Amino acid sequence: MSMKAIFFDGNEATLREDCPRPAVGPGEALLKVRTAGVCRTDLEILKGYMGFRGVMGHEFVGEVVEGPADWLGRRVVAEINCLSPDATPRDLPKNHDPNRTVIGIVGRDGCFAEYVAAPVENLHAVPDNVDDDAAAFVEPLAAACRILEQVSIASDDRVAVFGDGRLGLLCGMALRTCSEHVLLVGRHASKLALAEKRGIMTAFAEDIAAAARYDIVVDATGKADGFAAAMAAVRPLGTLVLKSTVAAETGMNLAPLVVNEVTVVGSRCGPFDRAMAMLAAGEVDPRDLITARHPLAEGLAALDAAASGDNIKVLIDVG
Amino acid sequence: MSMKAIFFDGNEATLREDCPRPAVGPGEALLKVRTAGVCRTDLEILKGYMGFRGVMGHEFVGEVVEGPADWLGRRVVAEINCLSPDATPRDLPKNHDPNRTVIGIVGRDGCFAEYVAAPVENLHAVPDNVDDDAAAFVEPLAAACRILEQVSIASDDRVAVFGDGRLGLLCGMALRTCSEHVLLVGRHASKLALAEKRGIMTAFAEDIAAAARYDIVVDATGKADGFAAAMAAVRPLGTLVLKSTVAAETGMNLAPLVVNEVTVVGSRCGPFDRAMAMLAAGEVDPRDLITARHPLAEGLAALDAAASGDNIKVLIDVG
Repeated sequence: MSMKAIFFDGNEATLREDCPRPAVGPGEALLKVRTAGVCRTDLEILKGYMGFRGVMGHEFVGEVVEGPADWLGRRVVAEINCLSPDATPRDLPKNHDPNRTVIGIVGRDGCFAEYVAAPVENLHAVPDNVDDDAAAFVEPLAAACRILEQVSIASDDRVAVFGDGRLGLLCGMALRTCSEHVLLVGRHASKLALAEKRGIMTAFAEDIAAAARYDIVVDATGKADGFAAAMAAVRPLGTLVLKSTVAAETGMNLAPLVVNEVTVVGSRCGPFDRAMAMLAAGEVDPRDLITARHPLAEGLAALDAAASGDNIKVLIDVG
Repeated sequence: MSMKAIFFDGNEATLREDCPRPAVGPGEALLKVRTAGVCRTDLEILKGYMGFRGVMGHEFVGEVVEGPADWLGRRVVAEINCLSPDATPRDLPKNHDPNRTVIGIVGRDGCFAEYVAAPVENLHAVPDNVDDDAAAFVEPLAAACRILEQVSIASDDRVAVFGDGRLGLLCGMALRTCSEHVLLVGRHASKLALAEKRGIMTAFAEDIAAAARYDIVVDATGKADGFAAAMAAVRPLGTLVLKSTVAAETGMNLAPLVVNEVTVVGSRCGPFDRAMAMLAAGEVDPRDLITARHPLAEGLAALDAAASGDNIKVLIDVG
């Protein structure tokens, strides 16, 4: 059986009508994709990230059409790090197991397609009061919530998030549930406005002095100069969370990390249950971040839209 | 009253016979220096670090010759971060107070001199069973012990220290008191031998594969390529301690910190009491690291000797 999918062959992404429907391995379920989200990682994959080849996409909500009886017909999201049941015993969590596959990123087809397979243990049911548009944010919101697992945040901690893109905004929203004093630093008035209406303070990057006064700083800029600005904003003995990967092409001075005894925390995938609970409780409602949506047949246009600086979140409607 | 001292004027270090004996401020004591140690920071100061001007040196043991009666005549070492008693209230520990001075590094004369002043609250008495040569190591050994305050280390944790210089060796010794599995990675057979005789495993830097399997990795290389090698050695979810400042002149890829969710801990000055206790108990005896010593009158030769790759610890005998 074939299906429609956005396929990356190592050179370019194309819409294919004849992709094979994914095989369902032991312990897995087959999901009919309803809605998917485009992430910066997808755009990196187009540039060669992880050397990925296959069906793209890892943020989605779908419906179980094949799998255990108690899951059939349920609306679900799926954690993206997958282990086969016959993998060697784990001495690291699944998200860090060297033998893992990652949906749409490492060795496993993704969700910009009519169907996607995922381990049953990775599934999370979506409550009725979380619609598809909100559920499409569970994966990136979980990544934002990872910060809350890694760093203890008090309500009076001064928190600054650098980067007003998709991930920066979600980090700001997740952190705002813990701290009264969250500042989002960015370059786009329209994006900062989305933070402001949620009680998050905002500032333009060029207006922020290197004042070293924030207890917790999150770098979600994905840029070396953003990392440098974030490093300059963290107070001595404070914490700098790296949410986006940084590869500086020019030199980088890490001496302030030592002099100020800063703790840097690398942060990646996070807890789906906590993100889902935030959405279900209405603590975070990210749906106004959606600025464009395309049907799967126009999935390539969705990728283009996500790459443009004008859009925040772009969805691909499948089901 | 004048004294002999090694003075750095911003261009070069000279031996001066006519330096003024330091003024003793409120809450301070005057110490007659007995023995001092040369540190990498001293060599950095010769290159302009911190824009320091004044008497150099911050590692020393001395005798109290002016100050409170209960301190007079005692053999002491002194913490290097100093606050004046009329400083504004601290919301950061003294070591990070922006108004601090630092002996021989920031705004305060150092110990490559016949006399040095220090706040009484910074003094630590040296027990009789810790001789001057051992006591001269309290400051750098305390910096190594700072790691033990910042990172929880279990006896079965796999620990790797990159850098077989003075600081790397002391870090290895301090960590060896906590973990059975400490590896020192360096480039000098004679220095690695000093670690080996203490039950520390050793390896040449070129023989270490980027295997990402150490729970805790310490970078004490002071070099960008050493930092990169240390980053490659830490396991996912592990800890990378930065003991030496790194300013890369070429690009640097921090993406592995995010992908592997590594925690990076900047680490600087440490607890004198813990270091002194280690020396007094004989848990650490660093005296065989001393490879050269010069009287103060030949202090410039001591600086040259410390800059040479052949020496490990160089002392300046004063008293």
